[in-house]
Amino acid sequence: MAATENMRDGDGVQFFEGVEKLLEIWFTNGDGGSKSADLRKIPRNKLESLLKIVRCEIISFVKNDQIDAYVLSESSMFISKRRFILKTCGTTTPLLCLQPLLLLAEQYGGFTKVEDLFYSRKNYKRPELQIMPHQHFDQEVALLDTLFPDGAAYCLGAVNKDCWYLYTLNPIPKKTILPDIGNAPCDEADQTLEILMTDLDPEIMSIFTKEECLNATEATKKSGIDKIIPNMVIDDFLFEPCGYSMNGVTKNGCYMTIHITPEPDFSYVSFETNIPSSSYREIIQKVLDTFNPGKFTVTIFANQASPTKDTSKELLLLNHIGKWQRRDIQLCNFKNYDLIYTFYCRFPS
Amino acid sequence: MAATENMRDGDGVQFFEGVEKLLEIWFTNGDGGSKSADLRKIPRNKLESLLKIVRCEIISFVKNDQIDAYVLSESSMFISKRRFILKTCGTTTPLLCLQPLLLLAEQYGGFTKVEDLFYSRKNYKRPELQIMPHQHFDQEVALLDTLFPDGAAYCLGAVNKDCWYLYTLNPIPKKTILPDIGNAPCDEADQTLEILMTDLDPEIMSIFTKEECLNATEATKKSGIDKIIPNMVIDDFLFEPCGYSMNGVTKNGCYMTIHITPEPDFSYVSFETNIPSSSYREIIQKVLDTFNPGKFTVTIFANQASPTKDTSKELLLLNHIGKWQRRDIQLCNFKNYDLIYTFYCRFPS
Repeated sequence: MAATENMRDGDGVQFFEGVEKLLEIWFTNGDGGSKSADLRKIPRNKLESLLKIVRCEIISFVKNDQIDAYVLSESSMFISKRRFILKTCGTTTPLLCLQPLLLLAEQYGGFTKVEDLFYSRKNYKRPELQIMPHQHFDQEVALLDTLFPDGAAYCLGAVNKDCWYLYTLNPIPKKTILPDIGNAPCDEADQTLEILMTDLDPEIMSIFTKEECLNATEATKKSGIDKIIPNMVIDDFLFEPCGYSMNGVTKNGCYMTIHITPEPDFSYVSFETNIPSSSYREIIQKVLDTFNPGKFTVTIFANQASPTKDTSKELLLLNHIGKWQRRDIQLCNFKNYDLIYTFYCRFPS
Repeated sequence: MAATENMRDGDGVQFFEGVEKLLEIWFTNGDGGSKSADLRKIPRNKLESLLKIVRCEIISFVKNDQIDAYVLSESSMFISKRRFILKTCGTTTPLLCLQPLLLLAEQYGGFTKVEDLFYSRKNYKRPELQIMPHQHFDQEVALLDTLFPDGAAYCLGAVNKDCWYLYTLNPIPKKTILPDIGNAPCDEADQTLEILMTDLDPEIMSIFTKEECLNATEATKKSGIDKIIPNMVIDDFLFEPCGYSMNGVTKNGCYMTIHITPEPDFSYVSFETNIPSSSYREIIQKVLDTFNPGKFTVTIFANQASPTKDTSKELLLLNHIGKWQRRDIQLCNFKNYDLIYTFYCRFPS
């Protein structure tokens, strides 16, 4: 997406890095905090200044009682009461906005504490084109480590092939009597499904160009994106000359977001949602049918209160999904969340 | 161990890197190969030349019908019919012997093909003291990638804290009708349990010095190492002035091996065995009781034919083992093996 920001490398070949950097932060005040605390109290002009640091801007916006959803020149931003999500592709620099964001969250949002943090991304296609500190995961970790003493950095998948990096908080729990039954319960259900696709079907990708579609609405319908998760209010954008972004939100505050870099030489599509489900198999299948990727990762985070918490068992058994064969599967068990990472490739034809 | 090889860094402070590089290779001839192929046909002088490249030497040797077990100046080597294991600590360079080893395996052993390969190690305490290509995992992977087109590199655990690196082969399986039931069956049971410990109990560590024990036999008995897995033929060595290595072998070709760097500033103990068991809980507990580490990793590889294959379920439930709390748990599902990685820390006292 965001073809207007296309870069040229030294050889004059056009390239755009579709791979996003995804930052999700949960704020809290602890027990004694103000009930009126809300990240959506941060003024629009402050958000715009924040995004300048990240090197992107707001291009569209929808909201309801539960969530503010922004389409950005590079991907998306979702703000709800205590959760901030920033997903940006290209050569954006989201980690540089962390400190100002924590200040805004306190000054306007009324939140004094980061409860949980997730910074993740797939390996870039062209890391050397990124801007500090985003060229290497080690650089990103070094910056995050200066802000979070309890940060833990992971690399899932094959580090010399396709992989996915994650930085999260993994504080030492207090010494209490711990039952031998896995994670502590958490009352607020939360889950995230993300599917990151590369080597996509060129015919499908051509939908997401101004040559083939007049506008985003047409691209959304023609591709079937509107049918992946029905009953979403959709805010979509078709870039000039190509590239596509969409946010969908439900009344109860769930979201989905899709970003498409359609160029054949570096095609990339990301799909993300936090809609709860006891099985993601149908959504995964719909996404694959919609985009027909050559390779893709599936990551699922789910906490103990989530109906999604047993999805990993389902994925463990799926050594292939239709024509896609699983190459990697890894499970991680964090303080509040279980994570499953899987990587699939199309069978050689 | 191998205190005779202690190094001094720029500040004149003594240091020894106990963390081993572990190389395990399974050879095969395919279906049409010679039944007389055997890695133990490689002459001793050829093995000695090979170990010169690695920067270590043989200091003791026991054998039976199933396995040749060598204690090295830096850790151990085990050679059986088609499996080669080389585990070396300090500043050894085992990856530099790979190409000559493959030649010897063909010329003398009669094996033309690598069926499976595992190269693994914990993160070093002092990576900057290592010799190329062992300073960074990236270097190690680059070398391995030149030899194995199907190699996949993984980092388990927190890359900015304690972690464990693995390189293995992950070829694309041929397109066949695949049932949705996980891995393909394999007829030869195989499993490996490894426990890598740091921050060990100084009183226990003092056993492994010439000051406290006259010889290895005394250290083995006094520490209780001989009771961890009974009925092993033990070949042990106590280094001057401190450090300890032991190999144990059973009649049917199973092994265990323990290596100890006792110095308080950089204490490290590794335990490894391939003894089959439907539960490793008792062995893990005995190892922890014997050495009392501050932190440790447990890794278990098991193939589908192994009685150990369900051990991961057992470990998933163990969010603490006595006074040690689990900080990380990751599962990987490879072509022939399942792997579980766990990392535990002692509760803050």
